Amino acid sequence: MPAPADHVARLRLIRSDNIGPVTYFQLLARFGSAQAAIDAIPDLAARGGGRAPRLASKAEIEREIERVAKLGARHLFLGQGAYPLLLAELETAPPALIVKGDIALLDRPAVAIVGARNASAAACRFARQLALALGEAGSVVVSGLARGIDSAAHDGALDSGTIAVIAGGIDIVYPPENEARQRAIAERGLLVAEQPPGVEPRARHFPYRNRIIAGLTHGTVVVEAAPKSGSLITARLAAEAGREVMAVPGSPLDPRAQGCNHLIREGATLVQTAEDVLEAISPSRIRPFRQRELDYAAPGPSADADEAARRALANLLGPTPVPVDELVRQSALSPATVQTVLLELELAGRLERHAGGKVSAP
Amino acid sequence: MPAPADHVARLRLIRSDNIGPVTYFQLLARFGSAQAAIDAIPDLAARGGGRAPRLASKAEIEREIERVAKLGARHLFLGQGAYPLLLAELETAPPALIVKGDIALLDRPAVAIVGARNASAAACRFARQLALALGEAGSVVVSGLARGIDSAAHDGALDSGTIAVIAGGIDIVYPPENEARQRAIAERGLLVAEQPPGVEPRARHFPYRNRIIAGLTHGTVVVEAAPKSGSLITARLAAEAGREVMAVPGSPLDPRAQGCNHLIREGATLVQTAEDVLEAISPSRIRPFRQRELDYAAPGPSADADEAARRALANLLGPTPVPVDELVRQSALSPATVQTVLLELELAGRLERHAGGKVSAP
Repeated sequence: MPAPADHVARLRLIRSDNIGPVTYFQLLARFGSAQAAIDAIPDLAARGGGRAPRLASKAEIEREIERVAKLGARHLFLGQGAYPLLLAELETAPPALIVKGDIALLDRPAVAIVGARNASAAACRFARQLALALGEAGSVVVSGLARGIDSAAHDGALDSGTIAVIAGGIDIVYPPENEARQRAIAERGLLVAEQPPGVEPRARHFPYRNRIIAGLTHGTVVVEAAPKSGSLITARLAAEAGREVMAVPGSPLDPRAQGCNHLIREGATLVQTAEDVLEAISPSRIRPFRQRELDYAAPGPSADADEAARRALANLLGPTPVPVDELVRQSALSPATVQTVLLELELAGRLERHAGGKVSAP
Repeated sequence: MPAPADHVARLRLIRSDNIGPVTYFQLLARFGSAQAAIDAIPDLAARGGGRAPRLASKAEIEREIERVAKLGARHLFLGQGAYPLLLAELETAPPALIVKGDIALLDRPAVAIVGARNASAAACRFARQLALALGEAGSVVVSGLARGIDSAAHDGALDSGTIAVIAGGIDIVYPPENEARQRAIAERGLLVAEQPPGVEPRARHFPYRNRIIAGLTHGTVVVEAAPKSGSLITARLAAEAGREVMAVPGSPLDPRAQGCNHLIREGATLVQTAEDVLEAISPSRIRPFRQRELDYAAPGPSADADEAARRALANLLGPTPVPVDELVRQSALSPATVQTVLLELELAGRLERHAGGKVSAP
């Protein structure tokens, strides 16, 4: 069965170098379909003063789709079918996921448990028991399949339901000692990857992975984390997404407790038991989904920009990321015009997008 | 030098059985002086339908004053001289304190450090170092001279300034192994007692002692505390007095951390260092003193109550403590009339006062 043309077109956009999730979303919103966006890109990039980004070829994408199928996995596309609604809320939601296992887990309430790779044995045991208790209470436990706390959390929830989000391709085992665990989760839980098969995880992939962990869940529990660790990034992303941030405290004399204690000082909920976690994410405390417009049926309004607007915005951009709002204010252009020009500049390789809706010159 | 007559009269009131701090304050506010209150008591009690409480005799009080002087201690009276203003804010401020040592310590910013008697060695070391660092930063450290955390806190602040509030008389050593520590604090710090000399500490004295610890300080730090422990009572009293409540976290696996973790969940500030404590009680966060009217120069308005009002209120009182406001509402009498009748009933032994301004039949 050939892959649907729309999926091929979507993946061609996603796998290009210059098109991140925000731009992808804007292109689909503006042009109504991935194919229409692809057709418009050369013209947009030219107006942005650069060359169009190289898109992945149809053949390349058809090979990816075939490979994913051979691995027993499948794609999920933002705004379609089984793609998780909670994750779709993120401004930076991945346009496509590759998943292997029981996708029904995506429909259940979920909690993330993350923490240090070099956690204490006591903390790992605590994480496993917390995951077990949350699983018994009906929650899916989401983590990152790293050593330490992540692995312990997956182990505790393997029988009740666990989702592992990995930084590399769905077929790449990392860390090596987690091979059996990764296989078990693909068979009995759900394995989730954003990168295409074959991609080895690199440092930059881990924060991307962390946003998916935060985005898939109603809240994130941090168990033992050093200051400035990846677990704290996940916690920050969860907070930015309006999800509950929870942390397990420890003695001030224990350096491994510093990250969690700091989170609690900053306002994270102190949790000691599964009951504490369930109370924090109880339905009464969870705001309703912010349903994004995901069907793209009607193309959004497009604003034509003139050469003067392009020059003004290109001049306002420097190496320091600034909020788009600030550009609207300083340029005195309409928000729609600014978005149009930024899209053109980005496709021309003359703009970078940053966290929190900021942009800069590359 | 004979003791001032006003001090003798005040102590005669204070040392009676039926007159607690709230009643004492109301009597002085209403009659303008302790002696005038003493003169009025038989009549008030008769109207309340009972016999006047036995007041301590002049001779008895003169012996107390003499004994306090011999012990090298002195009385401080609420609203006079060196009596600490922060403590005077409490609705239940002790009408008199007996102090021995350096009363200048009462004028400096102060923090309470309290915790478990059977604390871990690590927690005691932590408390000592926290007290040392707070002392170096200029804070006086207040505690209750109990075993464990209290003793460690006093030790850490002995050089910089520490105040020990004890549950029994100023001359009673408790616990026995703290004899040298208690003597050292009386010589180099300040020892504070509410009970007259010779009184052995009993269970009911400890919560009274705890309110003084909370009342003398801008905030209370709890280091290791079991659920339902005395340290948590101190924390609650601190919160009720509008003071900062701080707690040192611990692992959920450590039973001795449960009380502190619970406090943090309830809103206490998580502290790990002296800097955290100082930040929490920084001048910018401390509200101005609520200066109570303490000179009693002008007697307050007195409302005459008739027999019907007395009967109505006596009928409304049962064994379950109710707020005075509730009595005002249900009786439809004026607040001043209700206060007058309650004062009469109390002096007649027909009313008990409870925490939070509640009253009941005895």
